[in-house]
Amino acid sequence: MTRYRLTVEYDGRGFMGWQRQPHGPSVQAAIEDAVLAISGEERQVHAAGRTDSGVHASGMVAHVDIDRPFTPFKLAEGLNARLRLAGAKAAIVAARFAADDFHARFSCIGRAYEYRILCRRAPLTFEEGLVWRRPAPLDIAAMRHAATHLIGQHDFTTFRAAQCQALSPVKTLDVLDMEMRGNQVIVRAEARSFLHHQVRSMVGSLVWAGEGRCTPNDVKSALEARNRSALLFNAPPDGLWFIGAKYPESVG
Amino acid sequence: MTRYRLTVEYDGRGFMGWQRQPHGPSVQAAIEDAVLAISGEERQVHAAGRTDSGVHASGMVAHVDIDRPFTPFKLAEGLNARLRLAGAKAAIVAARFAADDFHARFSCIGRAYEYRILCRRAPLTFEEGLVWRRPAPLDIAAMRHAATHLIGQHDFTTFRAAQCQALSPVKTLDVLDMEMRGNQVIVRAEARSFLHHQVRSMVGSLVWAGEGRCTPNDVKSALEARNRSALLFNAPPDGLWFIGAKYPESVG
Repeated sequence: MTRYRLTVEYDGRGFMGWQRQPHGPSVQAAIEDAVLAISGEERQVHAAGRTDSGVHASGMVAHVDIDRPFTPFKLAEGLNARLRLAGAKAAIVAARFAADDFHARFSCIGRAYEYRILCRRAPLTFEEGLVWRRPAPLDIAAMRHAATHLIGQHDFTTFRAAQCQALSPVKTLDVLDMEMRGNQVIVRAEARSFLHHQVRSMVGSLVWAGEGRCTPNDVKSALEARNRSALLFNAPPDGLWFIGAKYPESVG
Repeated sequence: MTRYRLTVEYDGRGFMGWQRQPHGPSVQAAIEDAVLAISGEERQVHAAGRTDSGVHASGMVAHVDIDRPFTPFKLAEGLNARLRLAGAKAAIVAARFAADDFHARFSCIGRAYEYRILCRRAPLTFEEGLVWRRPAPLDIAAMRHAATHLIGQHDFTTFRAAQCQALSPVKTLDVLDMEMRGNQVIVRAEARSFLHHQVRSMVGSLVWAGEGRCTPNDVKSALEARNRSALLFNAPPDGLWFIGAKYPESVG
């Protein structure tokens, strides 16, 4: 039995999220089906993050155990050929051997997301479902100011979906940065782990501050309320991308 | 009668090119249909470049004359609403009044294209049809060397499609640059005008040099042959983007 570490890219528009669902396509099922097709083995694929329906990934990390010997190169080529045949908009962009104690989800010590906002009036031509379109420019300074209130360790109850299964609402947000690329605003969020909908809820609130619908201080008050009903806005899944996972050097 | 200047973005995957075709969708027909729908007027829309099937635009410039008075803002909003209703993957990203002597095609003194190449093994997830995927890394230095032979005024017969209607094969290529963005190589080409398939034929040849399938000097020899059969490779339309048109300050 060999453990493989995979870097996976997928277009969330074609899936009901990472996790296998009884009704509807998931990234996990697509990859597990591809593993079965090339190895004859029914294996579970584990990922660093279980993204929601409509959320994308450019750098999801996953692992899988397979008996039949493959080089990582052959494994990636075989899985990609099967994913393509199945019409799944997902690809293995890197594969390598992993140690037996490496676990894509439980060994993970850092998760990074990007949230892409495109500021323009015109409807989207290329990025429909891949960015959140806002018709007016954003005040980045106000967004940065609002973000300073969220960075660090807090009770993020306000920014947590009702169905969130985390034991505690307390999380430590390491990074919440904004960058402009042309008429796009890219929000980057990094933490050891996030609550369900936390990034989308934070981004929705930052955008409200960036559009002058609220003040940066209102974002602070929303956080301090520790109450979901105090949330300013939950951004749609469209602009959310899982971009990377971090592991201790001792595993992997 | 008012003349409007439009900046148009379109996804070439949904069209048989810019120019109206008897069989199949074109960008020109999509915009002319939208003009008819909002103004009741049958008008011709003229563009700086008549791109081929599968070629994209982020900054195509076009003009149209309309009797019914619109502000440029209302015109763009109306056309975008109609394009969206028609399911056309095209959008008016800017609109303004133009002088009566402004002609998107005949006043144009410079055209800029980008050709996007993505170097990776894995099949494409997000960029299928929007970039040319090459499985191996490219030698940018070799591509730059090959490009130096093409810049300037030359007889580009080798890089011209059989069906090209230009009177002369002599063109002046002002810019042929390469830039790396992650695992993408972006080739930028600028000239007053191009022959049919010229950018794709030049890019195909540069990539052959970048992959070591030929030397930079072979590209020079191909140019000097002035013969279509000497062409090394014609790149697919997928990676080609019309990004901008230049006009004299005196018109517009």
